[in-house]
Order: sequence, then structure tokens, then C-alpha cells
Amino acid sequence: MYDLIIENANLVTCDKNHNIIWNASMVIADGRIQVIESGSEKNSQYFAASQKIDARNKIVMPGLINMHCHAADSLFRGLVEELSLEAWLQKVWIAERSILTPKTTYTGSVLGLAENLLSGVTSVMDMFWYPNEAVKAANDLGMRISTGGIFFDYPGIGNRSHENFLQEAERFFEDYNSNEAVFPGVMPHGTYTVSPEHLKEAKKIAERHNGLYHIHAAETLAEQSDIRDRYGQSVIRHLHSNGLLDQKTVLAHCVHLDDAEIQLIADNESIVVHNPMSNLKLGSGIAPIDKMFEAGVTLTLGTDGAISGNDLDMWLTMRLAASLPKGNTLDPKVMNAKTVLHMATLNGAKALGKEDKLGSLEVGKIADFIFVDMDKIHAVPVFDPITHLVYSACKSDISDVFIGGKQVVKNGVISTLEIKDILEDVRKLSPKIAASLR
Amino acid sequence: MYDLIIENANLVTCDKNHNIIWNASMVIADGRIQVIESGSEKNSQYFAASQKIDARNKIVMPGLINMHCHAADSLFRGLVEELSLEAWLQKVWIAERSILTPKTTYTGSVLGLAENLLSGVTSVMDMFWYPNEAVKAANDLGMRISTGGIFFDYPGIGNRSHENFLQEAERFFEDYNSNEAVFPGVMPHGTYTVSPEHLKEAKKIAERHNGLYHIHAAETLAEQSDIRDRYGQSVIRHLHSNGLLDQKTVLAHCVHLDDAEIQLIADNESIVVHNPMSNLKLGSGIAPIDKMFEAGVTLTLGTDGAISGNDLDMWLTMRLAASLPKGNTLDPKVMNAKTVLHMATLNGAKALGKEDKLGSLEVGKIADFIFVDMDKIHAVPVFDPITHLVYSACKSDISDVFIGGKQVVKNGVISTLEIKDILEDVRKLSPKIAASLR
Repeated sequence: MYDLIIENANLVTCDKNHNIIWNASMVIADGRIQVIESGSEKNSQYFAASQKIDARNKIVMPGLINMHCHAADSLFRGLVEELSLEAWLQKVWIAERSILTPKTTYTGSVLGLAENLLSGVTSVMDMFWYPNEAVKAANDLGMRISTGGIFFDYPGIGNRSHENFLQEAERFFEDYNSNEAVFPGVMPHGTYTVSPEHLKEAKKIAERHNGLYHIHAAETLAEQSDIRDRYGQSVIRHLHSNGLLDQKTVLAHCVHLDDAEIQLIADNESIVVHNPMSNLKLGSGIAPIDKMFEAGVTLTLGTDGAISGNDLDMWLTMRLAASLPKGNTLDPKVMNAKTVLHMATLNGAKALGKEDKLGSLEVGKIADFIFVDMDKIHAVPVFDPITHLVYSACKSDISDVFIGGKQVVKNGVISTLEIKDILEDVRKLSPKIAASLR
Repeated sequence: MYDLIIENANLVTCDKNHNIIWNASMVIADGRIQVIESGSEKNSQYFAASQKIDARNKIVMPGLINMHCHAADSLFRGLVEELSLEAWLQKVWIAERSILTPKTTYTGSVLGLAENLLSGVTSVMDMFWYPNEAVKAANDLGMRISTGGIFFDYPGIGNRSHENFLQEAERFFEDYNSNEAVFPGVMPHGTYTVSPEHLKEAKKIAERHNGLYHIHAAETLAEQSDIRDRYGQSVIRHLHSNGLLDQKTVLAHCVHLDDAEIQLIADNESIVVHNPMSNLKLGSGIAPIDKMFEAGVTLTLGTDGAISGNDLDMWLTMRLAASLPKGNTLDPKVMNAKTVLHMATLNGAKALGKEDKLGSLEVGKIADFIFVDMDKIHAVPVFDPITHLVYSACKSDISDVFIGGKQVVKNGVISTLEIKDILEDVRKLSPKIAASLR
């Protein structure tokens, strides 16, 4: 007796070969994919299961993996507009300091993570001030999260000392290292906000626990010039010479890189997270992902926080990742749809160190998957489901989301938490948020 | 007795001063806005009307104006992928020749125009082979359309001669010049597909009827080099020296321009339609709209056809128009939200020669307006409705559309035509469309 059978599924597996299986049955038990067979109606009668779901007119694909987010920053969506990163950060930090407590961080985390979930994201890498609150929010929603202790040398939220940050980062691993839904790491903010010594101490904690190391890097020209002034070399070289580039290091942004830096990232097998909407809106620039791809860098996708890009939409992110480099290089062949679909799925799993468990629909993998509704006016006609997913599909096409075989979104409604209450809490808080910058 | 009162409306008027009127009553009769008053609940009792609609939790704003579309090309959505314009056009024309008849053009026009309508577009400028079919489709849907006879020197669809094109262009004005929902023009394809003589003849027809003149211009580097080879000067200079730039000329794309050409467009008060998604995806480039804006060019927005950009989404178009120039120039202050919102509304009306009637919600204007649902997870919080509309809102937020005071979309469903039948027709046609390129 299985738990669940998805019938009549058009499976875009996102496996290494980009296999598509038409009219498939996907059989699930114990949170994992047990069987995938084509010829749904013929085969599914041989499988007994507690529940059968008809996926006719849907594409069934793995849940998306958002590799760079600040979910709770959704509290500040639209508060600081049309400024460059540096000027913008000064205001963001004032607003954050005035508003954020563990409680409001929980509320904001639910807001941001629920937006991710409703658009088909099943795993999020999140960097924020109270990581335990983000974990609580992810847990309540039924999502997977990669997060951990933040590092920040300036007076941050809660006025914590470096000692506090060290303890919290350490404790995070102790609390969550055995949790299947949490992928712990350390989250130093950036080279311009954390000293090389502190960056290295953070890395040691990560290494001790075999954890991820997530950092903003090479986002703006101003940052590059700041780091060059301070340390005599560019951001990526600075990270490298401090021994901070390896397979466990996840670099958010990488907009401004020279060819040698791209090679350095590739040689050290570090991961890059591309956040195109945030990079455009803040005037940071257009990341050379086509060059990074050519150099063999493992590329993933992120939304950044809604305070910079104004929403958390991995479909827009995919579409931009495929389209921006074409417009920027005048070459419509760069960053094709298959490559970009992998950035949002299998490459995210690889970045999390979970390529054997997540990121594609294959027998033995965890059953994190979504339905993309094809009964939409922009989904007619469809000649190739992969180009459809990258160039036409959008967040409102996601009807259903399953994580570990459990349905957490049904017909566009989250079933794990009452979201209306959270929206009401945020609306009540918003006059205070607006006042924080006055 | 009025026809309709919209109560409790958060009116983003899109008038010249970007006025926002909270909690307003908008009173409609004879298809026009008769009264706008703030303080909805207090005032609306003084107005008697056949129908009252509560717009609580919605932004009410003018319908969007899509200034460059090939609606019927939605039949070929996703058929030709990841090629440059020139290589792509060769395939597109083969597919079009194999599939398009007046009947399939009608089906495709409904498909494309309905997608526009569902996302809140109330007026479309459309260039296509059988313009009467597009008019019929717009009429059946209850939308406004600007179109007219196409010009094309190569063997086009239906193998029409230049004489045929001339007659059809002329007849189009006779048929529709007095139609309130049709803004007739002539639609020569481009400088690389229509000779200077034919371009001038087309312009004469437009001038005789005080009509619009819509043409692709300066879309790619290859086009610029082709025109320079043939005529010894760049596309915009070529148009200018043939007397084709004036207030009635609407130039689609304008991606590759030098400063003198921008000045030429500004001096002649010609209109530019920016189509950012199509320009990115085809690798055409990133149009310098920030420079054009500085030079005083009237900028409008378009989706182009779904065969290039893969959908017809004016919300994505707005967001890109505001974000791309920021990323491209590294200046987050260029192309602010107000400027871009006007590109999709009031500037479109100006381009159509209907600034006195369309493009903003003001007393005396035609009642073309839409509801943008704010009860969405990406619409919490909202500090400024205008930045919300440009940077966060999306096509699936559009719940209701009114054209000339008549409701044509209700709760996301088109009430004028049964769209399911059209989708079924397209699905049935799609194997033949796929086969057209084999």
C-alpha cells in the first residue's frame, strides 16, 4: 500500500538528461518517489494507494529551490525605492532596527516563505537576523530551509557582539544538524560588513559541522572599490586568499567579476546564486552568468529579499536568467531554457549538498514536487514544456505543492497555516514600519 | 440615474500629476466618467445608479494600452526558440504562411487579445496580416484596437501584391474611420521589408485619413547594418529623410540608436514603443529608454507578439521598463515608477491621439478601467500604490476590467466570449502548427 499516486502526469523530471515522461504515474511512499512509469492509466491500477490525484492538464516537476532570500524582509516591501545598494542599505538597516524582534521576524518569515511556497518553491536558503524564527516559519509551513547564524561587525539587530554571533552560529548546528528539513550553515553578511578574521572564524564553524557558508559577494562596483581600498584586491580574490572559496561556499550575486575571478570560482567549485531582479532594480548591474556557465561554475537562482526586488518570484527569476544574458550579449543562444531550469532545481539541490535527494523527480528521491497548471491562456499552445516553463509559465500557474509527499498547497491555497492571519498582522504593523524611516 | 458607481475605490488616476484618490466614488454614465469624489461611503448615497460595485481592497486604475502586438502570432507561441531576429523571422514566416487564413487569424487574434484583456489591457495596437480579423476579435471581446493595412514587399501571407496592400489599407480607413473602438492606421512592416517608395505611399494613405503609421524600427544591429548597406544611413535617418517621422509615426523597438537619432525622434515628436521582453529574448539588445526619456521622446510600452516574448504581459513589460535601464546604466534612479506607469497608460493614449479620452481616470474621459486585487501575498504591505503597481503587481492580480463602462472581465473571467472554445480550437490546430516547420 503506497501513500499517494499522481496519475496522468506530464513529468518534467529535471534530471541530468532533462527527461520528460508523458502521461506518467508517480508513486509515493514514506515521503519518497517509489515508482515512475509512463502510460498512467494502464499502470496505476496495479498500485494500491491511500490517495490518487489526477494531474491531467498539469506539468508535474520538482519544487523550485530559491538559493538566496531574506524572507522576513518582506515586511519592508516597497519601503525604500530607487536607491543604489549602499544608500538603500543605510535606510533598510534603520527600518530593520526599529521593527525587528523575534516575533516580527517570525511574522515576516512566514510572509516571505509563504510567497515562495505559493509559487512552487519547496526549499529556501535564507539569510536573516533571527534564523531560528525563519526555521520555525518554514517548519510551520512545511517547507525546507537552509539558514544559520548571521555574522555582521556593525551594530546589527539586537546589538549582538561577535561573541554572541559565534555562539548563536554554533548553537544553530547543534539544534538543527539532524533535522531533515533544515540544512544548516553560517551566513556572514559580506566582505564589506565582516572582517577577514571574523569571516574565517565563521568558516571554521561551518567546516566543523560540514555546513554551508553563504555570503553576499561582488554585488556592486562600490563594494569592489571599497574592498580594493581596504584589502588591495577584489572581493573574490579577497575571499580566496582568506581560504573561503570551496564547494560549501555559496556566493550571492557575483555581478562584477573579471575572467580570472570567474575561473577562481570555477576552480574552487564554489556555488553562485544569480538574483537578476534585485540586481536590476538596485542598479547593481547584470551578472555575467553566460561567462560563468561557460567556465563551468555551478549556477543557482535566488530572489533576494522583497525589499530589493519587491517580490519573491522564482518564475520571473528563471525568465530573466534566460533572457537578460541574451539581450546583454546580443546572442539569443546563451543560457538556454534547459540550463536555466536546472539552475532553479537540480543545481540548487547540488548547492545544498542534496543532489542525491532533491532537485529532480527520480525514483528514490524525496517527493518535493509541484503542479503547473496548463489550463491558462498563456499556456496555449505548448510545443515544448521546458521552454514553456522558462519563458511563459508564471507563479500564478502553480496550483499544488507537495513536500516530502505531503500536500502543502492545494488549488493555490496553503493548507499548513492560516495565511490570512499573517497578512492581517503585517497590515497592522505597516504604519509602524512606514514611520520607522520618518 | 447613472449606470454604474464604483465605491470605496483606491483610484490611481494616472493623470498628469499622478493623483491618487483614496476611498473614492467613481460615477459612470454613457460609457464616461461623470463624477469622481473622495469619501466614498458618505457620497455614494447621493448618486442613484443601476449598479454599484464595491472596490474595497482593489486599486482602480485606467486600462493598460499595449502599443505593439501581433496578437494572432500567439498561435505560434514557443514554436521558434533561441534564435536571433533575422534567423527567427525566416522560420516564423514559413509557419505563418502554412497556417494563416482569415479564420485561423481570427482564432489567433482572440487568443492574443484575450490574454491582453485578462491582464488589464483595454486598447491594443496590433500589426498583422488580416487586420479585419483582429478588429473582429477585438470587437467580439469588447476591446479597443488600433490596426490597419500591413505593407510588406516580399511574398507575404496570401501572396498579395503592393496594389492589394494599397487597396486594403485604403479600405480599412473607409470601413473603420467612424468606429469608436477602432483607431485606424497603416502598418508597414519595416525599412528592411518595405521599399522607401512603398513606405511613402503607405504614409500618404495614413495622412489622407489622419491615421497612425506604425513600423518596426532600429530593432537589431543586423537591421541597422542592412539599411546602411542599402541606403547609406541608419534606420531612423532613413525614415526621416523619406519624410516619415512625425507625431503620427509610432516606432516599435528603437533598440539601437545614437544620440542624434534620439534627438531626431524627439524633434519630430514621433512615438517610441519599448518592448523589453522581446528585445531580450531575441538577443536584440536593451533599448536606451532612459536617454530617450531625457531627450523628451514620448515613450510607450508593448509586448510584441507571443512568438517572440512568449506571452503578452504588460505588467512584466512595465517592471522591465523600470528595472532594465537601472541595471544597464548602474543608476537606480532612472525610469522611476511614475514615468513607467504613464508609459503604459497616458502616453499610450497620447500615441493613439486620444489623450483627451483615454489613459487616465478623469471626469469626462471614457470609462476604461481595471481592478487590481490587493488581497495577494505579494501585495502586503503596500506603502505606495504606484511603486506597488510597477514593481510588485502582476497580471494575475487583475480581477475586473471595464471598457466604455461595460464590464468585460469579472473575477478573472471574460464575459464577452467563451474563451474555452478558442483554446480548444488552438489546441486542435497545434499539431499542424508544429508540423509547419518540419
